[in-house]
Amino acid sequence: MQTIFGAVFARGAAADLTGGAAWLRAMLDAEAALARAQAAAGIISAADADDVVAAVGSLGADPGLEPRLGTAAAGAGNPVVPLAAELRRLAPAAHHGATSQDILDTAAMLVSFRALGPLLDDLAAATGRCAALADEHRDTLMAGRTLLQQAVPVTFGLRAAGWLTALDAAAARLREVRARRLAVQYGGAAGTLAPLGDRGAEVVPLLAAELGLAAPPLPWHTDRTRIGELAGALGTAAGVLGKIALDVKLLAQTEVAEVAEPSGDGRGGSSAMPHKRNPVGAVAVAACAQRAPGLVATLLSAMVQEHERAAGAWHAEWEPLSDLLRVVGSAAAWARELLAGLRIDAARMRGNITDVHTGGADPGAYLGSAAAFIGNALASRQETV
Amino acid sequence: MQTIFGAVFARGAAADLTGGAAWLRAMLDAEAALARAQAAAGIISAADADDVVAAVGSLGADPGLEPRLGTAAAGAGNPVVPLAAELRRLAPAAHHGATSQDILDTAAMLVSFRALGPLLDDLAAATGRCAALADEHRDTLMAGRTLLQQAVPVTFGLRAAGWLTALDAAAARLREVRARRLAVQYGGAAGTLAPLGDRGAEVVPLLAAELGLAAPPLPWHTDRTRIGELAGALGTAAGVLGKIALDVKLLAQTEVAEVAEPSGDGRGGSSAMPHKRNPVGAVAVAACAQRAPGLVATLLSAMVQEHERAAGAWHAEWEPLSDLLRVVGSAAAWARELLAGLRIDAARMRGNITDVHTGGADPGAYLGSAAAFIGNALASRQETV
Amino acid sequence: MQTIFGAVFARGAAADLTGGAAWLRAMLDAEAALARAQAAAGIISAADADDVVAAVGSLGADPGLEPRLGTAAAGAGNPVVPLAAELRRLAPAAHHGATSQDILDTAAMLVSFRALGPLLDDLAAATGRCAALADEHRDTLMAGRTLLQQAVPVTFGLRAAGWLTALDAAAARLREVRARRLAVQYGGAAGTLAPLGDRGAEVVPLLAAELGLAAPPLPWHTDRTRIGELAGALGTAAGVLGKIALDVKLLAQTEVAEVAEPSGDGRGGSSAMPHKRNPVGAVAVAACAQRAPGLVATLLSAMVQEHERAAGAWHAEWEPLSDLLRVVGSAAAWARELLAGLRIDAARMRGNITDVHTGGADPGAYLGSAAAFIGNALASRQETV
Amino acid sequence: MQTIFGAVFARGAAADLTGGAAWLRAMLDAEAALARAQAAAGIISAADADDVVAAVGSLGADPGLEPRLGTAAAGAGNPVVPLAAELRRLAPAAHHGATSQDILDTAAMLVSFRALGPLLDDLAAATGRCAALADEHRDTLMAGRTLLQQAVPVTFGLRAAGWLTALDAAAARLREVRARRLAVQYGGAAGTLAPLGDRGAEVVPLLAAELGLAAPPLPWHTDRTRIGELAGALGTAAGVLGKIALDVKLLAQTEVAEVAEPSGDGRGGSSAMPHKRNPVGAVAVAACAQRAPGLVATLLSAMVQEHERAAGAWHAEWEPLSDLLRVVGSAAAWARELLAGLRIDAARMRGNITDVHTGGADPGAYLGSAAAFIGNALASRQETV
Repeated sequence: MQTIFGAVFARGAAADLTGGAAWLRAMLDAEAALARAQAAAGIISAADADDVVAAVGSLGADPGLEPRLGTAAAGAGNPVVPLAAELRRLAPAAHHGATSQDILDTAAMLVSFRALGPLLDDLAAATGRCAALADEHRDTLMAGRTLLQQAVPVTFGLRAAGWLTALDAAAARLREVRARRLAVQYGGAAGTLAPLGDRGAEVVPLLAAELGLAAPPLPWHTDRTRIGELAGALGTAAGVLGKIALDVKLLAQTEVAEVAEPSGDGRGGSSAMPHKRNPVGAVAVAACAQRAPGLVATLLSAMVQEHERAAGAWHAEWEPLSDLLRVVGSAAAWARELLAGLRIDAARMRGNITDVHTGGADPGAYLGSAAAFIGNALASRQETV
Repeated sequence: MQTIFGAVFARGAAADLTGGAAWLRAMLDAEAALARAQAAAGIISAADADDVVAAVGSLGADPGLEPRLGTAAAGAGNPVVPLAAELRRLAPAAHHGATSQDILDTAAMLVSFRALGPLLDDLAAATGRCAALADEHRDTLMAGRTLLQQAVPVTFGLRAAGWLTALDAAAARLREVRARRLAVQYGGAAGTLAPLGDRGAEVVPLLAAELGLAAPPLPWHTDRTRIGELAGALGTAAGVLGKIALDVKLLAQTEVAEVAEPSGDGRGGSSAMPHKRNPVGAVAVAACAQRAPGLVATLLSAMVQEHERAAGAWHAEWEPLSDLLRVVGSAAAWARELLAGLRIDAARMRGNITDVHTGGADPGAYLGSAAAFIGNALASRQETV
Repeated sequence: MQTIFGAVFARGAAADLTGGAAWLRAMLDAEAALARAQAAAGIISAADADDVVAAVGSLGADPGLEPRLGTAAAGAGNPVVPLAAELRRLAPAAHHGATSQDILDTAAMLVSFRALGPLLDDLAAATGRCAALADEHRDTLMAGRTLLQQAVPVTFGLRAAGWLTALDAAAARLREVRARRLAVQYGGAAGTLAPLGDRGAEVVPLLAAELGLAAPPLPWHTDRTRIGELAGALGTAAGVLGKIALDVKLLAQTEVAEVAEPSGDGRGGSSAMPHKRNPVGAVAVAACAQRAPGLVATLLSAMVQEHERAAGAWHAEWEPLSDLLRVVGSAAAWARELLAGLRIDAARMRGNITDVHTGGADPGAYLGSAAAFIGNALASRQETV
Repeated sequence: MQTIFGAVFARGAAADLTGGAAWLRAMLDAEAALARAQAAAGIISAADADDVVAAVGSLGADPGLEPRLGTAAAGAGNPVVPLAAELRRLAPAAHHGATSQDILDTAAMLVSFRALGPLLDDLAAATGRCAALADEHRDTLMAGRTLLQQAVPVTFGLRAAGWLTALDAAAARLREVRARRLAVQYGGAAGTLAPLGDRGAEVVPLLAAELGLAAPPLPWHTDRTRIGELAGALGTAAGVLGKIALDVKLLAQTEVAEVAEPSGDGRGGSSAMPHKRNPVGAVAVAACAQRAPGLVATLLSAMVQEHERAAGAWHAEWEPLSDLLRVVGSAAAWARELLAGLRIDAARMRGNITDVHTGGADPGAYLGSAAAFIGNALASRQETV
């Protein structure tokens, strides 16, 4: 994440929750949870686990840790090798039986779990606002537009109801992935947890319970379905947010002017045209959304991993997963704010309707099932919340 | 689909189920079902519906229809405009209240539903074979390999169990999308079904029932979450199949030679080296899988659609969706066959284990929880079937 | 290529030049050229070469060849293995020293070379039309629009000049790739041309001369820079065409109405709204352009190929390369026609200019260097043609 | 860029040259150069230009600038709006006639130009090393491998010559893009440079001369061919580097062991298996390369921009362009080092050759034109340097 562009791409809480510090926090949490789970299973002593937890606390408080690991990671190719070495110097029981990927994969799931929290809150708020707009504007006539040409009239409420069902579907899938598919990783060097004899498999559900993640049936070092499903769900959410942003941009065009973003505080300003009111929020959502498909493609292509643990494709997940969580999170935060402040000009909507298709007839005669569809959308929402 | 490359990319039933004839069949089925649903709702007469069904039958039997529509589509930009015109000449009640996208989107869902049938069968067979391999090779020692270097020993059963859980997860998601998210489309010109007065919304669930698809709460002309979710699920399945293919290719290397594909009938031959035994099935799966991420990215980027109906992004879905269903279907068909015939050389597996990490100790001492993990994988499978 | 969607995605000559028959033609041409080149080098006799050429002619006239190869390709994984077998039955000197990939790669380059011909013609015609528009509309005032809001005035000529330079740049790069980077392939089983002793390297430039392609310094079986460069150039051209289409769609909006596509012959019609005038050409260009980035990504990801010849990534190029040539070719054909018929409403352009930024001042006072820039664009074009 | 993963993805100088500070430096350089160019054209006074240059120096020395702009950018959607405001407070002549995008696009080109410097150095060093390997190993017999099976023998020199020509082609294209296509941007609010009357066009070549970039014929605010071409060239370079890395990974497999990366200093270590020698460099190159296609796809899809300046697609370029320069730069740095230290085990290469295809004959009898091809590759290189 580059601070210089963070205004657009790192809005909302997901940005901080996907940065280097958040990853490091998650790796340390994974190490501490592993020690506690092993103590619960009687594999290490409670005192040893306490030592690990204390060492985690100590390293977590060290501001030099992140840059130190960044440098030291070059030899091993990942930051867990030097992190585990530091931990073990402080608490020899740390990282017992684990491979780097156990910690990094568990951290990836924790980072995802945590970043999805505010992202889902933002989506829920956006969805709630769409529901309110759909309800409030059931009768607000607006030109229907297809292929960017005016078609028969619709209502703005119907448009908002469409946004609502799309947001609902995207959020439902993200919730499901978050609840069921984000799992701990613990398999050791080659997925057998050999250093724990035959007791390794017991530790997995205990570790999962410590961290509030799912327990996998076996190590998923090279089964990346969890990453693929998360990527797909985030990509779909990005598409939904991008569609809403596109609609706002088009409806806010000077020549259409049916909606507007709030201004003030220099918002929407231009360095060359100070009086301009740019749809900053919609532009930011659109920019974030545009980045998702490429990131999803990278994550899906990286699913093809060799043998027990991969030679590059696994590494290729780290930054794109962070970026995807961040840009979709940023889009959700922008969208929530955009929808909360969106100004609807109902008179302009009514006035823009041409009579190309109505031939002068009452536009209201074309609404057909619009109200029923809005009702369906609102009702379907109540089922999922 | 190009016949010339169909051996690799169009194996299995999904290929025929995603070609031009399958799309045309689905469009005609959608038109017939719409008439029946409208008759059931009392919106058109039973006789009119019968006429539509008859007209559909007549056009469906006309081999000149597809090329004729292909040409005529240029004016309108999609093949439903001329198809509906032909139908209405034969049966004036046809296509009542519908827009082209209603028929084409419903057809896209039917094509997807139908293509997913054999694809899921192939995945199920592949999964079953992995379960058998996992069970049979619980004790077959094999070098664990990480970053393409030998690590501590594992069993081939554990590897197969990993394939199994990945296939299971991918198939479960595809089944869910197929059962719940493939929905009919019926909204008319701008999503209000204006020509049906306030009765349009009644027709939607009847249409869904006719076709065995889900009934959406409102038209989803520009809510493409259904396409996005389907794309994500197919992309994930491709990743899983690609991983299996990569493992087979690596294990079949001349220098490793732990598995082999069946030969015979010129299979695996080379035009320059007739004695060569190429891993044709794994190569084909890999080639198919490699194409999925780009297709998924295209479908996700096309989710950003304007207003009531889109100006290009919708069109951009048609071929990539067909291609994605086809190449993942082809990968599944190849993988099923590949796994069914895969020869495992347990002696070679055992013999290849170096003592880099074991220092001469019994490799069996490193299996840790391998058997328990295999057991978990087999048990988790029984839950999902 | 699916006929059913060909109206949008297979316009222009590039479609036929990238289908199965075109690939087969190119494979046969490669085999014939190889025989002639070997005869020129004295490696086979002139009579043997004549036999090969005759056999190529005979197979080329056989309508059953393509489906027969499609089926037979399953065993070997590519259609050249059975093609070479058929050829050798007719003319034993055929395919001497060649591997399947030699013929298929050479055919890929021939298909690309041939498909780029009409594509470049269409781009040149589109560019020429943009130059005429730029020249004609130097003084046609139009609202400048940034972030989809009106900004200070510009001229339509300046917009057209921007299209012109973008098209010029894209076409120049495609011409360069076509002239310098499309090369024959001839390396035999592992790139050494072992069956020709030390005389193989002599044949390569002779083969290149036969086919009008470049001669590579050594076999490029797993050096896919040529494919990557071609893909990048096509992807850039798609972006340029997509930008023009987006501008046309936005300027043709009902509320803007500054440009229009020609109508007539049912063009732009809607199955639900017969009076509608959809911007069919711009929609088709947009749809084609949207597909390019995913196809480019697939081709770039497939550059990572193993050892002397790849196990899947090479196969993964065939259809995406065909598709990319086809959809960019289709976009170019649509764009040429779209620009040729585009109607410019100068009065409407002038009338739409609001005084947000001009405060009532003469819009012409804001043109600054517009005319100079148009002049630069027209002059820069004359240099490149 | 996340420090935590920087060991893999931010090696070499390109990383620092693409971070937030580098972007800020480039924006300030663009502002200073603009003032100097305007002074050279007599549009502002030399004293005013000096004030701007001084203000740039002052802001450039302010460590609080980057975070301050990051926050302030939220209102406007880009960091140049607050940067220009700060500059103008210090030097009122700053940013004269410019829009934010002029500065940011010029900065993007400067960032690219600067990052390509060390990247090209690394590619040149890697190419030189491949040339030395090709020369040195002209006669080093190695099993040719196709579809991951042994084929007829080749030499390691031939393999290295293939790497060489691919690197050369990729670097040549990058050099060309760097020299000819990276251009300044100066068009003002809507591309006419209205505030400069008819003198704006004069400033463009002066600005280009100040910065060592190309002068465009007209503003390219929504003609993104320069970005598209740069992305394509970087994507192709990534593919070449990925291919080399894949070969090294495969040749370094335990069972093949024909090449090895240098060890020592904990390099290639594992947290679970301390004796392991992982091919860390090849893994890092592979991981970087895998990320390029998705980033290229994002940049190509973002070429489709509205009217005079875009509403989101432009913003969507900033981070992916930085990331693409960074990961390809990192791959080049890793590859240079990897190749410099690569250990070749010629005896093992010879020993691994099976007699599947040679039937016991002398492998040297299969080398055909290998030496001639190596010679061609070395000669073709001398032409391009």
